[in-house]
Amino acid sequence: MSRSPGRKQENHKISRELFVLTYGALVAQLCKDYEKDEDVNAYLDRMGYSIGIRLIDDFLARSAVKKCRSYSETADMIAQVAFKMYLGVTPSVSCSSAMGNEFSLILDKNPLVDFVEELPAERASLCYCNLLCGVIRGALEMVQLAAEVTFLQDRLKGDAVTEIGITFLRKPEDRKHKRN
Amino acid sequence: MSRSPGRKQENHKISRELFVLTYGALVAQLCKDYEKDEDVNAYLDRMGYSIGIRLIDDFLARSAVKKCRSYSETADMIAQVAFKMYLGVTPSVSCSSAMGNEFSLILDKNPLVDFVEELPAERASLCYCNLLCGVIRGALEMVQLAAEVTFLQDRLKGDAVTEIGITFLRKPEDRKHKRN
Repeated sequence: MSRSPGRKQENHKISRELFVLTYGALVAQLCKDYEKDEDVNAYLDRMGYSIGIRLIDDFLARSAVKKCRSYSETADMIAQVAFKMYLGVTPSVSCSSAMGNEFSLILDKNPLVDFVEELPAERASLCYCNLLCGVIRGALEMVQLAAEVTFLQDRLKGDAVTEIGITFLRKPEDRKHKRN
Repeated sequence: MSRSPGRKQENHKISRELFVLTYGALVAQLCKDYEKDEDVNAYLDRMGYSIGIRLIDDFLARSAVKKCRSYSETADMIAQVAFKMYLGVTPSVSCSSAMGNEFSLILDKNPLVDFVEELPAERASLCYCNLLCGVIRGALEMVQLAAEVTFLQDRLKGDAVTEIGITFLRKPEDRKHKRN
């Protein structure tokens, strides 16, 4: 594909409704395939991961962003550039640890659940949007950032907001590399 | 959801890449679940159908189109308004029967296969994008138009273009209604 990096192209956009309904069909299929919510969640995460490791190239080419110099900058980039670009929404970001490596992305409105009223009672532990966590995790890994990404709150489960927690994992060898 | 019918809203748009990769994950999952290509095709079609019967409301609200007066107008509407709105592309339309009820939508470029090089040899009969046929069939059914929708050509299978055939099914009771 030939693309001008950093240039917004209308033909990269599609309707959210078709995506949201297709995503719903995917989750429904996995719920048929796997009895336990935990298995569906894990599968969505893995699936998201393999999407994330491919999507990062597209993101870097189209956003033309510079290298982030801190975890905080990275979290802002995910919220303000990546979420905006791929889902058309901008979560707010808060840092939730004194160590400066834990962040929350807070979504007042989750575009992926437009057509979902509530989770069925027998699927109370389902992380419906867990694909997103996997996508973030996969994309970060491709820029050499290991992270744990999970849903901390979910409006589908009655919480006031939807909150995605990102914990950047400092590895001993990272510190060593930094010192060099 | 509150929407102004007919008004284009930027927040209805998302990145095509995320959709295309998620769709790919869905097809891959179905290929794991069903051994036969025919079963995957049928499943994608059924899944698309249930998306189509929900998407039509969104389409009617946002496009603010008038009732089509002929099959030809309907086919043009699908290509020029619906495909443009949901997938960001506009197929060309040709009528392929003297009866005036068979149409082809011809896509030079199929946005759903951006990341797909070719089908694996053991999946030669897979209609990768069969969800689209189901979506069209479901949406048409909700405006009282019965149709058969199938892929006639597919670039993924080596054809020069991708061609979706729509055959509107005239039913005896339709003719009777029309006369009244």
